[in-house]
Amino acid sequence: MNLKGQHILSAKQFDKELLLEIFQQAKKFEENGGDGCLKGKIMATLFCEPSTRTRFSFETAMLRLGGDVVSNFDMMNNSSFTKRETLFDTGKVVSQMVDVIVMRHPVPVALHELAKGSEVPVINAGNGPQDHPTQAMLDAYTIWKEFGKLDGLTVGVIGDLKYSRVLHSQVMALKNFGVKFVLVSPKELQLPVDLKERIDFVESENLSEVISEMDVISVNRIQEERFASKEEAEKFRGKFVVNNQILARAKEKAIVLCPLPRVEELPTEIDGDGRIRFFTQVKNGVFVRMALLKMVLG
Amino acid sequence: MNLKGQHILSAKQFDKELLLEIFQQAKKFEENGGDGCLKGKIMATLFCEPSTRTRFSFETAMLRLGGDVVSNFDMMNNSSFTKRETLFDTGKVVSQMVDVIVMRHPVPVALHELAKGSEVPVINAGNGPQDHPTQAMLDAYTIWKEFGKLDGLTVGVIGDLKYSRVLHSQVMALKNFGVKFVLVSPKELQLPVDLKERIDFVESENLSEVISEMDVISVNRIQEERFASKEEAEKFRGKFVVNNQILARAKEKAIVLCPLPRVEELPTEIDGDGRIRFFTQVKNGVFVRMALLKMVLG
Amino acid sequence: MNLKGQHILSAKQFDKELLLEIFQQAKKFEENGGDGCLKGKIMATLFCEPSTRTRFSFETAMLRLGGDVVSNFDMMNNSSFTKRETLFDTGKVVSQMVDVIVMRHPVPVALHELAKGSEVPVINAGNGPQDHPTQAMLDAYTIWKEFGKLDGLTVGVIGDLKYSRVLHSQVMALKNFGVKFVLVSPKELQLPVDLKERIDFVESENLSEVISEMDVISVNRIQEERFASKEEAEKFRGKFVVNNQILARAKEKAIVLCPLPRVEELPTEIDGDGRIRFFTQVKNGVFVRMALLKMVLG
Repeated sequence: MNLKGQHILSAKQFDKELLLEIFQQAKKFEENGGDGCLKGKIMATLFCEPSTRTRFSFETAMLRLGGDVVSNFDMMNNSSFTKRETLFDTGKVVSQMVDVIVMRHPVPVALHELAKGSEVPVINAGNGPQDHPTQAMLDAYTIWKEFGKLDGLTVGVIGDLKYSRVLHSQVMALKNFGVKFVLVSPKELQLPVDLKERIDFVESENLSEVISEMDVISVNRIQEERFASKEEAEKFRGKFVVNNQILARAKEKAIVLCPLPRVEELPTEIDGDGRIRFFTQVKNGVFVRMALLKMVLG
Repeated sequence: MNLKGQHILSAKQFDKELLLEIFQQAKKFEENGGDGCLKGKIMATLFCEPSTRTRFSFETAMLRLGGDVVSNFDMMNNSSFTKRETLFDTGKVVSQMVDVIVMRHPVPVALHELAKGSEVPVINAGNGPQDHPTQAMLDAYTIWKEFGKLDGLTVGVIGDLKYSRVLHSQVMALKNFGVKFVLVSPKELQLPVDLKERIDFVESENLSEVISEMDVISVNRIQEERFASKEEAEKFRGKFVVNNQILARAKEKAIVLCPLPRVEELPTEIDGDGRIRFFTQVKNGVFVRMALLKMVLG
Repeated sequence: MNLKGQHILSAKQFDKELLLEIFQQAKKFEENGGDGCLKGKIMATLFCEPSTRTRFSFETAMLRLGGDVVSNFDMMNNSSFTKRETLFDTGKVVSQMVDVIVMRHPVPVALHELAKGSEVPVINAGNGPQDHPTQAMLDAYTIWKEFGKLDGLTVGVIGDLKYSRVLHSQVMALKNFGVKFVLVSPKELQLPVDLKERIDFVESENLSEVISEMDVISVNRIQEERFASKEEAEKFRGKFVVNNQILARAKEKAIVLCPLPRVEELPTEIDGDGRIRFFTQVKNGVFVRMALLKMVLG
C-alpha cells in the first residue's frame, strides 16, 4: 500500500503488509538514526486537547528527519475557531502553507471535516473516543520487536474498553495478525459491539483468573474526560490494578503496555519489574512516527 | 527603498516601487522555492490575539528560507506582561535574542511601543483595527499576478469598512496604483474619512447594482471583536452576501478576495466558482512574507 | 568538572573553575557566533509559569548551536498533568524523545521529581522561590566581562532578598569568588539565614548610605507572586528605588544589574546612564546558555 499523500485517520486503514513495512522502516530509524529525508518539509500540529507526549512525539519525529514544525497546541483558545471558521476551511487554509497536518480533537467528526478541506495529508493524533492510529502502530511495533512476530499471540486488554480510543485503534491494528484477545473490563465499560464482531476474543471480569494466559498485558486507564461526570468515572477507578501480586501470576515473558499516563491501574511498585514496557513504548513511538511521516510525505 | 533593518508597521510605508520589488521577489520564491538566505537568523512571533493563519504564514515563510522561529502565541496570558513589564522593555529584551520580531496586538499603540524599544526590525501582524500591512501586500500580490498589473483596475471593497484593519491596509497599498474604489457598506460602517481623503472612490449601499463594475471583489467580514457588544455587531451580519446570485452579475474575469475567516458573507455555495481566490491568497501570503523577510533581514 | 549528562538544578553545583570555563566558552560564542555543535539534538522546554525572556533565551541558544526545540510553554493547562501524571513519569516520558529538558515550575520540589524520572539532563529555568542557576551564571558572566574578574568586588543586592530565586542563585554563584556582599532590604524581606551563613556580608536598610561602596548594584523586584496576598506585597513596593539621585552617589565604574522585568525599582529616567547593564544581561544570557548546553550535551 502506497501511503504517499494519504490521510491517516483510522487504524482501520492498516493491513498486515503496511504495518510490517512501517515496522521495518521504524527499526531502521531506531538502529541508524534519522536521515535528512524531510528537509524542507513543514508539519503543522493542531491540538485541540491537552497533550505533551503525543505532540512531542510527532514533532521530534519530524525534526529528527530534518523537517520543521509549526504548532498550535492550544487551538481551542488560540485560533480563528473563535472567529467561527469551519474546520473544512481551516484544513484548506493550513494546507496552503505546510506539507502535513497532525490533529488532535475531542470531537471525532472534526478530524474528518478538516481532512476534507486539506490539500495535504492529515494524520489523526486522537479524535475523541474514536481513534488514535499512530498509538496503535507503536503498540504493535513494541510487541513485534519483543516477540519477533504478532501472529498467534494472546493479548489481554484491561480496563476502560468502551471509551479508550487507543484501545479501539490497537484492536483494529492487531486483528490483522490473528491475535487472540482477552477482554477484561467492568460490564459497563466493555468493548463496543462493532469491534467485538471483528475479533477473536474471550471476556472476563476477573483479572487474576486470566492474567496467566496473556503474552501482552495492555492496560487502559478510565477515560474520565469521556464520562458524563467525574463521579460517574470514579466508580470504576482502580477496579483492575496490575500490581506485583497480579504480575506474579503473569507469564515470565509477558510484556505490560500502557498508552500513558498511567494512574492507579499501574502502581509504581511494579517499576522494577522487567516486563513493563510503557516507557519503551514512548521511545518506539518516535521511530514509528518517523516511518509514517516518511511514507506519507514520500 | 531599502527595507534592511526597517520596522514594517503600516501599509502607509509602501510605495509602488517597493511593492513591485516585493512582488518580483515573491514570484521568484513561488517559482523556485526558498533559498537558504536566512539560515542562522531567528524570528520571534509575539501574538497577543488568537491567530493561526497569520502566525503560521510568517513562521513557514521564515522556515522555508532556512531561518528558525521562537514563538509566544498566547502572550496575553504567558509572559512578563503579567509581571508588569512595559512593551518598550519587552521590545528591548526580545531584540537582544532574535533577529526580527513579528507582533500582533489588539491595541494599536502597543506595537509602536514595542518597536520603539526593539533593536531589530518589528513587523506588524495586525494591530487592533489599525493596520495589517503584510495582508495588504498579499492582497495586492494576488491581484497583480492575476491581472499582470494593478493600475486602472476597479476594486470593490464590501462589508465592514470601518473596523477592518486588513481593508485599511489594503486601501493604503492599492492607492499607489491608480486604482478606483467602489465602497459598499452600511452607513454606520463606512471607510474612515482620513482614508477616503486619499483615494478615488464611489460609494454605494446596493451591492447588486455595483458588483458588475468590479475587477476585484474584496469581502470583509463584520469585525465583531471590535464592537461594543455582540448584539451591536449582529445587526450588520449578512448584510452584504456574495452568493451565486450576486456573482452571476459580476465580471467573468473578476476575482473574489477575502482575508479569512470567511463567514456568512461568502457562503460555501460559491466554492465551485472559478473566480474565488481566498485560499490562493493564503498560499501567496507565504511567498510575500518570504520576500519581505529577506528584504528586511538583508 | 565535567557537566556532560548532568542535571543543572541549583547554583550550588557551581564552583569557581566551572564558572570560569563557562565564561570562556560563552565569550567564544559571543565573539564568533554559534557553531553547529548541537545539530541533531532536541531540547524540550516545559514551562509551568509564564515566561518569555527565559524561554526564548534557552530556545535561541539551542537554535544558534544548530539544535532543535519542542516547547510546551503553558504546561499547567496543556499537558497530561490534567490526566494526573506524576512529574517523575513526565520526566521519564519526555526524556525518551529529547536530548535535554529545560523546566520552570512554581513548586521547588517539582523540578527534582521531574529530574529523578528523566534519563536526559534537566536544566532548572526557575523553580519557585528556590533557584534559577542559569540567571546566576549570566549575572556572573556580565560582571566578569565588565571587570575582568570577580574576586574582591563588592556586590550590593537590593530589594526582595527573601523570595527572589535569582538572587539566591546569584549569591551562591558569586560566593565562589571572594565577593563581599552589601545586603539592602526591608527587615521582613532579608536574605534567608542559610544563605547568610555562607557569605561575607554587611546589612543595611539605608540604600543611599551604602550605594557608594558597591561595584555591582543588583536590583531585585518585589516577588509579588510569592506573597500571600497582593496587599502584602504592596507594602514593600518602591521601598528601594535606584533613580538618578541614588546613582549620583554610586561609583563611576559601578554597573547596575537586574534580572528583569524591571518595575518601580528602576525608573526609566536612568535609561541614559552608562552604568546600566540589564539589557546587556539578556544578550549575555544567550551566550551563557549556549555554553552550558554545549557542556551538558557534550
